Amino acid sequence: MINQDTICAVATAQGGAIGIVRVSGPDAIDITSSIFAPIDGRTKLQGKEAYTLTFGRICKGEEVIDEVLVSIFRAPHSYTGENATEISCHGSSYILQQVMQLLIEKGCRSALPGEFTQRAFLNGKMDLSQAEAVADLIASSSASTHRLAMSQMRGGFSKELTDLRTQLLNFVSLVELELDFSEEEVEFANRNALLKLTENIERIITRLADSFNVGNAIKNGIPVAIIGETNAGKSTLLNVLLNEEKAIVSDIHGTTRDVIEDTINLKGTLFRFIDTAGIRETHDQIESIGIERTFRKLDQAEIVLCMIAATDSQEQIQKLYEKIRPKCKGKQLILVFNKSDLINEEVKKELEQLAAHHKTPHIFISARNRENTDELEELLVKTANLPTVTQNDVIVTNVRHYEALTRAQESIHRVKEGLNNNISGDFLSQDIRECMHYLGEITGTISNDEILGNIFAHFCIGK
Amino acid sequence: MINQDTICAVATAQGGAIGIVRVSGPDAIDITSSIFAPIDGRTKLQGKEAYTLTFGRICKGEEVIDEVLVSIFRAPHSYTGENATEISCHGSSYILQQVMQLLIEKGCRSALPGEFTQRAFLNGKMDLSQAEAVADLIASSSASTHRLAMSQMRGGFSKELTDLRTQLLNFVSLVELELDFSEEEVEFANRNALLKLTENIERIITRLADSFNVGNAIKNGIPVAIIGETNAGKSTLLNVLLNEEKAIVSDIHGTTRDVIEDTINLKGTLFRFIDTAGIRETHDQIESIGIERTFRKLDQAEIVLCMIAATDSQEQIQKLYEKIRPKCKGKQLILVFNKSDLINEEVKKELEQLAAHHKTPHIFISARNRENTDELEELLVKTANLPTVTQNDVIVTNVRHYEALTRAQESIHRVKEGLNNNISGDFLSQDIRECMHYLGEITGTISNDEILGNIFAHFCIGK
Repeated sequence: MINQDTICAVATAQGGAIGIVRVSGPDAIDITSSIFAPIDGRTKLQGKEAYTLTFGRICKGEEVIDEVLVSIFRAPHSYTGENATEISCHGSSYILQQVMQLLIEKGCRSALPGEFTQRAFLNGKMDLSQAEAVADLIASSSASTHRLAMSQMRGGFSKELTDLRTQLLNFVSLVELELDFSEEEVEFANRNALLKLTENIERIITRLADSFNVGNAIKNGIPVAIIGETNAGKSTLLNVLLNEEKAIVSDIHGTTRDVIEDTINLKGTLFRFIDTAGIRETHDQIESIGIERTFRKLDQAEIVLCMIAATDSQEQIQKLYEKIRPKCKGKQLILVFNKSDLINEEVKKELEQLAAHHKTPHIFISARNRENTDELEELLVKTANLPTVTQNDVIVTNVRHYEALTRAQESIHRVKEGLNNNISGDFLSQDIRECMHYLGEITGTISNDEILGNIFAHFCIGK
Repeated sequence: MINQDTICAVATAQGGAIGIVRVSGPDAIDITSSIFAPIDGRTKLQGKEAYTLTFGRICKGEEVIDEVLVSIFRAPHSYTGENATEISCHGSSYILQQVMQLLIEKGCRSALPGEFTQRAFLNGKMDLSQAEAVADLIASSSASTHRLAMSQMRGGFSKELTDLRTQLLNFVSLVELELDFSEEEVEFANRNALLKLTENIERIITRLADSFNVGNAIKNGIPVAIIGETNAGKSTLLNVLLNEEKAIVSDIHGTTRDVIEDTINLKGTLFRFIDTAGIRETHDQIESIGIERTFRKLDQAEIVLCMIAATDSQEQIQKLYEKIRPKCKGKQLILVFNKSDLINEEVKKELEQLAAHHKTPHIFISARNRENTDELEELLVKTANLPTVTQNDVIVTNVRHYEALTRAQESIHRVKEGLNNNISGDFLSQDIRECMHYLGEITGTISNDEILGNIFAHFCIGK
């Protein structure tokens, strides 16, 4: 047990019917007992079995602060691995604050963000990537983010990494054994077998690192830029998709001057929408800055919706297309012909031919009348083409993990090169150990206070 | 048991580390068990003792929704008096929504606001005034509102009312016994003793009804109006007291056109502040309306802070005082001389004499520099002169209770008059029964669906 002090925190958000105060540490049960009077007046909390609830009163001198239920947990069978209690109160901010104050008077310390989970990690209840998944799980707001977090919290990722480290450890043991006997020129490890092993490990690490693309898209949304001339209806479309009035919509050209971002869950896939200023030629300085920013924002987008007023002339549309196309290299471009309710069949055909000529996917909508916007959503999901993940898939969603994997990938690549070039065992050993180090950073086998501080500071209080 | 269906609701606010789903009703344990897999894979929830916690997983087919702790309660030993469970999850909105959905699929119904407490009332776990106190307790944000709610929830008020009803029942029994034997002209009840009893009951009811003044002030704040000429610094003072930028402050005369209200806890006493438009003579129509409203708002105030720029001329101040004084009859008027940092000792003495002459309390402050504003707070608390309440005091805080008490008071008063005028027993009996009826409405001995609906609709979901 590393922590000798007992911590407490309110673990529920303000404003509910129920509020929970969480206590953990060697004195958790004693301290809770000291402010608690069981309703039957007899059994003290210390005498209660683990995993039981006791009804009673939290008192401050003569005054009853609340009637509460106290849950008892005993080390190591608790979330943190320590003695712990949970006090379930009425959800009044005053009551929760009073309970906290009483606990602190009796010797508790107010917990830092994520400190309960940090203790769970330090007490070996979970590894670091699992601890990080707890925060992701709490923040999860869709089926796919939930699945990724749950898979990681339940240790799917940890198992992959542990397997890798075991393989690397066997590998490095062989290499180092050779070094010990270097004067005898023995070769315990068959170089071809080693090369195969290395290639296999590199493949797995690469697969994990590559999964970050998907993981990141699922967790943070696929970046979509909506671009087009002023007044083509970009903000109206965004509002339809967002189902709210976030962007200002008006009939005055160039209304949207700030780049507004919002994530939205369309049919199970998360998109991060970038609304942009119109790209009309302008002499207005503020708007020029907006347009510049628009093109810069395009860099971040994976999908570009090019909004075009179908009522514009063919030449104008052609000109716009030629302006935007070069900025969309490597991105998925979709032509969105808006105001389709205002054109006739002939114009529609011409526009269809234009899209076909440029081999660019297109769709006709009327954002204002919400016509075909549902089909646009489907087209977006299809274009995003994210794989369906299950709780058994191991997908990297965390930037820290991705960075460590990239470094591990570099190390193992050097090992492979080394084997091919027949470099000496001690260089090999150094690179293998470096690879193991980076993988260990992910699970927290290798960690330091700074890394831990960074990770848990982003947790919420009470977790 | 009146309710045959099983209800469920999220009982915690969104955004915390922990989220609780509450289930209550005959099938609460069976339904919870049907979506729950205990971690040891053996003991079903049905086999668990009451007041225990079980660790396990909520599953939706193959997919793990969350790892949770389930609390078990069995009728009648639960909050609602029914079988009940509480599922403690990670506080993700997605998880909580999934758990709710699973419970509903298995036969639960989504609970209405306050429905758990309503069931507790209907199952005889608490009376109606206690049930109402639960909502007050959750909303309590200060020591005094907490104390009042706790006293009421613990049944202090109910006990007083039950005592009264018992006395009235004995009384009416005697009177009605006389009626049964009316032809024999017996008098079981000594009229003098009855009169004494009536007077005693009237005294108690009156005391309770009168306590509403204090109860209401504690619960909703003592109304304070800040009045004065434009630019005297009213908004600046309000901001200092509120510690935030709620009212717009500027140097342009007549900035504050809307009446802004806010409650603030000053040294333990709650005040409801009314900021008002300045009362300068004006030709601006909008501002005129504001000033009219200002004077109307004065009616509601108990304390009036008359803000005066100490830098104004004596004549101007005298004129203002004469304008305001007649509007403040029956209210506590305090002269607040603002901008005291800009006057010399001589001017200060003159103003002190003016206040002394009118026998009106006064204070010098500089709102802008926060000078003496702390002393002003103390003066307000002293002027409010609220008694310190303890959890043993029975104080009425609820408008519904106050109205019922006022009616009970009228009935018992008629009984007293009747006894004095020697009216016949059947009229007496009718009035006594009416008085009992109104007292019964408070505790819910007498209730109907409409009353209950009104009361519980104002509760939060999950309570």
